[in-house]
Amino acid sequence: MFDRVAIIGTGLIGASLALALKRHGLANHVVGCARTQETIDKALALGILDSGTTDIAAAVNNADFIMLAAPVGAFRDLAKAMAPHLKPGAIVSDAGSVKQAVIDTVAPELPAGVHFIPAHPIAGTEHSGPEAGFAELFEGRWCILTPPPESDPTAIEKVTQMWRGIGMQTEIMDAEHHDKVLAITSHLPHLIAYTIVGTATDLEAHTKSEVFKFAAGGFRDFTRIAASDPVMWRDVFLNNREAVLDMLGRFTEDLSALQKAIRNGDGKTLEDHFARTREIRRGVIDAKQA
Amino acid sequence: MFDRVAIIGTGLIGASLALALKRHGLANHVVGCARTQETIDKALALGILDSGTTDIAAAVNNADFIMLAAPVGAFRDLAKAMAPHLKPGAIVSDAGSVKQAVIDTVAPELPAGVHFIPAHPIAGTEHSGPEAGFAELFEGRWCILTPPPESDPTAIEKVTQMWRGIGMQTEIMDAEHHDKVLAITSHLPHLIAYTIVGTATDLEAHTKSEVFKFAAGGFRDFTRIAASDPVMWRDVFLNNREAVLDMLGRFTEDLSALQKAIRNGDGKTLEDHFARTREIRRGVIDAKQA
Repeated sequence: MFDRVAIIGTGLIGASLALALKRHGLANHVVGCARTQETIDKALALGILDSGTTDIAAAVNNADFIMLAAPVGAFRDLAKAMAPHLKPGAIVSDAGSVKQAVIDTVAPELPAGVHFIPAHPIAGTEHSGPEAGFAELFEGRWCILTPPPESDPTAIEKVTQMWRGIGMQTEIMDAEHHDKVLAITSHLPHLIAYTIVGTATDLEAHTKSEVFKFAAGGFRDFTRIAASDPVMWRDVFLNNREAVLDMLGRFTEDLSALQKAIRNGDGKTLEDHFARTREIRRGVIDAKQA
Repeated sequence: MFDRVAIIGTGLIGASLALALKRHGLANHVVGCARTQETIDKALALGILDSGTTDIAAAVNNADFIMLAAPVGAFRDLAKAMAPHLKPGAIVSDAGSVKQAVIDTVAPELPAGVHFIPAHPIAGTEHSGPEAGFAELFEGRWCILTPPPESDPTAIEKVTQMWRGIGMQTEIMDAEHHDKVLAITSHLPHLIAYTIVGTATDLEAHTKSEVFKFAAGGFRDFTRIAASDPVMWRDVFLNNREAVLDMLGRFTEDLSALQKAIRNGDGKTLEDHFARTREIRRGVIDAKQA
């Protein structure tokens, strides 16, 4: 499908994509670009990349397809740095968890004749770095593409086929709508998990050691989510501020209502609320995303 | 270890305990008690119980060991109903997720000469009913015992050996302290998961269907937790009100601080917070409870 693919950022997503492209025979050559030679050496030793460099100009030189797989806060500088070296007709995509901000920052930096097709593969684990990568990460999951209105249909189709080729289902969506849906399905859950684990961190030392031991009652799932990459998540919240604050406002209202029910000993309100959330679980299971 | 064990409530915990006791040869006869004959028939058909009844007097008659495995809100009535039929020297225990309220409601109902050793096996899944039970549920997990100060040491030891015999680690703790630790490790996580899944339930129909599809970004873990038994959890919040409201207050303060950081675009506060929660994850992994 592609002769030369450049992956900018060789963490969990970049490394997994490199492995998946090679496994499915979708790229002749995958070059990785990272900030440090140490990361490149690690990725090469793990057999993830065909070649690696810390020089973004060298990485994108002659590439058909360039994937931005770094924290989204770095995208503007990366786009600026790569722009003069992009081949005419090259396709640039990304794997960022926010989409409108990415379009606003990346698109203006790219030269005419280069296609920018933003994407968000909804897949991940709490682990970071090239050593966390695995080729199966994307299988059965959804990838949302948010091409701006004027995008080239052939380039959209090519990016779509790439994600499908590594096992994903794809959907095309308006960037603003994407940011709203992800605010509730991903960004707010992470914010809440980071918050409650932080609350536990502030407990006195003795209680904290007990929190570790007795985490199986629900808390451990939150610690896993809150172990995700801090820089990536900082950038998500800085770049999807309005949608996250909107969903957070709704959440806080709902939490206050349950708090009041607990304070008043209002068992009926609690039970009614707890019963109706099962519908959503059923929907997630039916969508094969459980 | 026991000749006749009566398990009051044949849901996930009760059914799993019955299976575990039989597998480890710790009971000659396990009798189950449920509110409906239908549940009993189901448990018998699944081979979970040696016998079953909807009559609590018949269930506890001549039993050495009685386990309350119903929602804690039902404990007072169950204790009242069984009290006249308990054998002198019998040990009553429970598997409730709150402990001080259980001591306050159950202990006064039991006759002299019967031992009450409250316990909380910290193990579970989001599934309910006898068909959800499995013998391995408790393996490697912790069970907290909260015997009141005047408890008989031999009875404490016997209950301890029972839980250890089915693979649990045990710890003895003051009931009030238990309720505080569990408020942060279990009760608050459930409350928050129920809340955010409820928030998603209130979204317009089109967005809600997308929430199902794109749940892999963190939300699905919350839907699993929020699929837990509504009546059980209603009773937990009604019976651990103060500790839950205290932890919820701390959580809300912390969430407000992060909300403010997002609103102000304060990336440093976000990144610092997100980085320090990794310590807790490490502790949970080291405690083998991940």
